[in-house]
Amino acid sequence: MSLDSRVAALDSLLEDAGLDAVLATKDASIAYLTGFWGLQMERFFGVTVRRGGAGALIAPSLDRDSVGHAPTGLDTTLYVAAKSNGLPTLYETFGQAKRIGVEEDHLNFARAKALQEAGYELVPASDLIMHLRAAKDAQEIAAVKHACAMIIEVYEEVWADLKLGDTEADVNAKAAYSLARRGGSQPGPHILFGAHAGDPHGSPSDRTLQDGDVIVADISAQFDGYWGDMTRVAHAGTPTDWAVAAWNVVKEAYDDAVAATKVGNTARDVDAAQRRVVEAYPEIGACLHGAGHAIGTEIHEPPFLVATSDTPLREGMIFTVEPGIYDSERGGIRLEDDILVGPDGPVNLSPSALELRVVG
Amino acid sequence: MSLDSRVAALDSLLEDAGLDAVLATKDASIAYLTGFWGLQMERFFGVTVRRGGAGALIAPSLDRDSVGHAPTGLDTTLYVAAKSNGLPTLYETFGQAKRIGVEEDHLNFARAKALQEAGYELVPASDLIMHLRAAKDAQEIAAVKHACAMIIEVYEEVWADLKLGDTEADVNAKAAYSLARRGGSQPGPHILFGAHAGDPHGSPSDRTLQDGDVIVADISAQFDGYWGDMTRVAHAGTPTDWAVAAWNVVKEAYDDAVAATKVGNTARDVDAAQRRVVEAYPEIGACLHGAGHAIGTEIHEPPFLVATSDTPLREGMIFTVEPGIYDSERGGIRLEDDILVGPDGPVNLSPSALELRVVG
Repeated sequence: MSLDSRVAALDSLLEDAGLDAVLATKDASIAYLTGFWGLQMERFFGVTVRRGGAGALIAPSLDRDSVGHAPTGLDTTLYVAAKSNGLPTLYETFGQAKRIGVEEDHLNFARAKALQEAGYELVPASDLIMHLRAAKDAQEIAAVKHACAMIIEVYEEVWADLKLGDTEADVNAKAAYSLARRGGSQPGPHILFGAHAGDPHGSPSDRTLQDGDVIVADISAQFDGYWGDMTRVAHAGTPTDWAVAAWNVVKEAYDDAVAATKVGNTARDVDAAQRRVVEAYPEIGACLHGAGHAIGTEIHEPPFLVATSDTPLREGMIFTVEPGIYDSERGGIRLEDDILVGPDGPVNLSPSALELRVVG
Repeated sequence: MSLDSRVAALDSLLEDAGLDAVLATKDASIAYLTGFWGLQMERFFGVTVRRGGAGALIAPSLDRDSVGHAPTGLDTTLYVAAKSNGLPTLYETFGQAKRIGVEEDHLNFARAKALQEAGYELVPASDLIMHLRAAKDAQEIAAVKHACAMIIEVYEEVWADLKLGDTEADVNAKAAYSLARRGGSQPGPHILFGAHAGDPHGSPSDRTLQDGDVIVADISAQFDGYWGDMTRVAHAGTPTDWAVAAWNVVKEAYDDAVAATKVGNTARDVDAAQRRVVEAYPEIGACLHGAGHAIGTEIHEPPFLVATSDTPLREGMIFTVEPGIYDSERGGIRLEDDILVGPDGPVNLSPSALELRVVG
């Protein structure tokens, strides 16, 4: 779908939503609508689409060159960030529009308050924008698949290099380099050893790889605007009984959750499929998170595969499916692939061996 | 200053600000108050400090291990992100508090709306929290200086390796690895060649280094929670007259802006010092940004050295001072150091040669 078609598709949703205009502020939404990737930091960036399809990309003049090269058919409007917060420039792009849809999980309180005080009525519209972004077209699916292919290459390097005594910090630094060399931006390897792997959000540290450690290797990066995100596991030396048992539980949960990633199910159904399995083995470890999240121009994007979401799965959605089981003493096991909701059922965009590999 | 002292110092500001409690939600503010670094993504994290100094760190149960190791004296309260958005858990930490200071440049519209609908009055309080975070103590100053020392080592590797024909992408990947190997997290090298260096926010590409190219190397990373952020420049082969002239302009602007980074001046004064010089040479290029930004647990934090800010500089503040001049055809020149507002004037925490180095 071309950028112009995306703007037109968003415009076509405004009347039913009772909106005069919509304001996209997330980097990934701005890129989806205009092809422009900004670097927001404290500065304001946005895309306005008014009913009828007119609109504008608003950015600081600092980004004039990148904005100038953006392949968008929308107007582009620059403001001088050293002299303005950008909002007066934004208001000009609204024209007569007063009832404005905003990305309520991104727009900050200060800007929302300023917009309201300037007389605009703000309506949560993340779902509206995500309704478009969530269903990926063939080109987007190919982009996620390509990102996963790059990550699969990186795994081969990681496993081939890994040896006892390596620090988490060094292994992660090398994996990040391996991703970046392949063109990956924001490389996010998250490779943890032993008990540390029992913390799904632990930070790579000076911990060294010891015989008997389980290894959880979560590797993600963005390639040409689209993310891949996978997790594979290994064991230093012969796997312990606990590690084998944990892997078997997670593999069963993975199979059930992947099978549930299809049209006709809701986000909650996929989570229930993994949770049913993982929560049956409290003696092995804890179920600490949902089944996964949508992925595309953001690494984590809605819908989230959690028990609180009744969002129906639609064809073209792509989700990480990533059940895990965690124990603070013995470590963790997680398996993660990027799964397309295809017309004939789930399609794995990151196919490669799921085994508990032995290294070191 | 210990974590407990920081909480006490924040508490001591609440009465004058007319607040019952304050809610910090930025990663860097949470870390400043508790020593805990989260990974927010879509999940809610926060620190509540009520008048009297009681309070809590609120985080998803997914982060239970990292939260458990956090060196905070505050209560820690976990919620199950797969089943709750965390806000009911947050409300419990407010007790009887109704008038709540929030980080208005971080808290999102959806959460702000939910808090307001639950009966809380929200008051912008970023300045209150930043008033504490802005003035760094001796340990924090040493941490920024250490980060800069690591970056200075990385520059030596970058300059030694750089040769004609290298791609921007590969040079940036190697610099990121060099930062990560030294313990740098979120490594942010941003090294651009030739005309591309005329875009202060251009993305590293497949462009190769050619004889006659100017090179702008902006390198940043976080070490032990604190950032360093520097920019140095080089030229492939004998510098052109334009590059020499641009360097001379920026060096003069740098000297003037560094000299202005002292108690008694405002943020605007530092910007004016660089702007006065850079804007006098439109035939060389454009002045596209302010003089810099504060740096600490965030790479960009307030106060910002821009024409719109009358924030007085205080002892212990640390700023990047980074004037630049840009031309879309010929490239750019920027020089950046991390400058402490010391008791006896500006102190450069990243001292190393500023020359226009010749490489290739």
